[in-house]
Amino acid sequence: MKRPTPPIQWVDDHIRIIDQVLLPTEVRFVEIRTAAQAVDAIQRLAIRGAPALGAFGSLALVVALDETHPSSLSEATTRLEECRTLIGDARPTAVNLRRAVDRVIDEAISSSQDLAGLRATLLREAHAVAAEDEAACTEIGRLGHELLRDATTLGTHCNAGRLATAGTGTALAPMYAKAQAGEPLKVFASETRPLLQGARLTAWELEDAGIDVTVVPDGAMASTVLSGQVDAYIVGADRIAANGDTANKIGTVSHALAAREAGIPFYVAAPTSTIDTNLPSGEHIEIEQRDELEVHEMTGKRITPQGVAAANPAFDVTPHHLISAIITEAGVLRAPFEGSIADALTRTGAP
Amino acid sequence: MKRPTPPIQWVDDHIRIIDQVLLPTEVRFVEIRTAAQAVDAIQRLAIRGAPALGAFGSLALVVALDETHPSSLSEATTRLEECRTLIGDARPTAVNLRRAVDRVIDEAISSSQDLAGLRATLLREAHAVAAEDEAACTEIGRLGHELLRDATTLGTHCNAGRLATAGTGTALAPMYAKAQAGEPLKVFASETRPLLQGARLTAWELEDAGIDVTVVPDGAMASTVLSGQVDAYIVGADRIAANGDTANKIGTVSHALAAREAGIPFYVAAPTSTIDTNLPSGEHIEIEQRDELEVHEMTGKRITPQGVAAANPAFDVTPHHLISAIITEAGVLRAPFEGSIADALTRTGAP
Repeated sequence: MKRPTPPIQWVDDHIRIIDQVLLPTEVRFVEIRTAAQAVDAIQRLAIRGAPALGAFGSLALVVALDETHPSSLSEATTRLEECRTLIGDARPTAVNLRRAVDRVIDEAISSSQDLAGLRATLLREAHAVAAEDEAACTEIGRLGHELLRDATTLGTHCNAGRLATAGTGTALAPMYAKAQAGEPLKVFASETRPLLQGARLTAWELEDAGIDVTVVPDGAMASTVLSGQVDAYIVGADRIAANGDTANKIGTVSHALAAREAGIPFYVAAPTSTIDTNLPSGEHIEIEQRDELEVHEMTGKRITPQGVAAANPAFDVTPHHLISAIITEAGVLRAPFEGSIADALTRTGAP
Repeated sequence: MKRPTPPIQWVDDHIRIIDQVLLPTEVRFVEIRTAAQAVDAIQRLAIRGAPALGAFGSLALVVALDETHPSSLSEATTRLEECRTLIGDARPTAVNLRRAVDRVIDEAISSSQDLAGLRATLLREAHAVAAEDEAACTEIGRLGHELLRDATTLGTHCNAGRLATAGTGTALAPMYAKAQAGEPLKVFASETRPLLQGARLTAWELEDAGIDVTVVPDGAMASTVLSGQVDAYIVGADRIAANGDTANKIGTVSHALAAREAGIPFYVAAPTSTIDTNLPSGEHIEIEQRDELEVHEMTGKRITPQGVAAANPAFDVTPHHLISAIITEAGVLRAPFEGSIADALTRTGAP
């Protein structure tokens, strides 16, 4: 496997990220030295993916503190409290972002006696957030690798890889593990209209790691799968209900239906933090409706006639009966999911 | 229903078509006065759709004859023989084009005693080709309208409408019939990557007729259907095997899988000329693989990273067990399809 480009790095006193908006046309790095730059990067999607936002937002607290040159612990504390919303709410739907920011600020404030200590704790906790996510990705990769030992062709949707986490990803982690082990691997990445995360991001990051990847139009995945070209599917998740119903990027459920018809496994890979047991089933997951313009336009040009409507749901729900297993850092969960999910959350000590 | 724009017209001594390449951005008419112009229009997809090509190619024989100003019956016959391949083979996969061209030439040559008679027969037969297709569309529309009497929301894929036939289309014919009858109707048109026939052409022609149409990304149709927003699906067909397995535009089978999961009917609408009983099942239908560039680029701009592969099958096969009925001009065919298809072909007197 080629050594892949790291999407988030802490360099001396600032953050360095790949500007994902420009991918795959251009691999440009952006330096983040202020809170405003961090918020801008989050809001224009230069950085995206819930776990990646948690790691990035935590590091952003350090540059946000440094830029104000606080002269006392109390000035620093005031600045961090300001950052709770300034950075923590930069993208409201990304629960990982707010959670990570709160955690890092709380730990720094509660355990520090002086300014230097506060700054050191902040940076240490920020690195810990990233390290924990990286470890979860690695474990998901290890478990997925075991499950997919005999699979040489894998299908995936959207981007749940290095670009979306602080590690090797969720859905893509087992692919990196297979590549690392020198096993043969060919990945079919569906393009994921309207925002093309598959065609742009998954294709880029797998190619960047030297993994054989083929981009497939969303509508062409079903026949690719039905013709026997795909051994298994593995996708990420945005939210998982207590019964295993899984919300993920729009289009996911059509892949699950094709997988069932073809008789191949359909795996969901996600950290246990994605599971929300307050939601008994997928019906309770609210689906974000995004701007119609994302459908009406492609690369900035209008493709539909003026006057027609467009539907643009951001996610869909794959019912649990179409899911072969959910691969988490706390184990591979199988049906009946109510039980296996509850057990996993007990193991991780989740509330 | 608004009076829709006719896509193919015979005006005095020439053909007038809508340039479909420019749709939906611009509705521009092109005048066809020579064989070269006709071939160019076919090859650059200004006109497309197998039945529409049959009608267009037949009329093109008249302008192709006129432009050479033949002075004798034998000169005219020579010119028409030349046109068999010149026009008939302008798009090799469109079997309707070659068939219609052969039929019109054969009839004109065999039944004419002089130059004027030849030209008159040619024009009459060309109009007959279009009229027969129009009648088949109307009958498919009538039968589909009966089947879909209680449906108010319909899903479709690609374009099987006025722009693809000499009449009201195949899949879209029942929609025009419903609109004509003043019944409530809302259509969900999947965008149909890579060439966007749904977003561009179906959206345009339904809107042009005043029918409520919503464009949906291909991957978003499944959840639209599963959430109960669609009463039935109706799609066209490129080739139907003896057992009912149906080849249609890439993506069709994913819609059929969603329809089954949602418990809604999935109808195929096609003239009996689409049925090929030489093919026992869908496995025998060869799937055209088109240029990868159609996937790599959108509106002329590269979207995928350099170095990655792309899959671009033009069609997929929907197995007959996912099809509720096939609506033809010779009746509504249901499972077991071997029998109902054979009966229908007997009724039409097909070989």
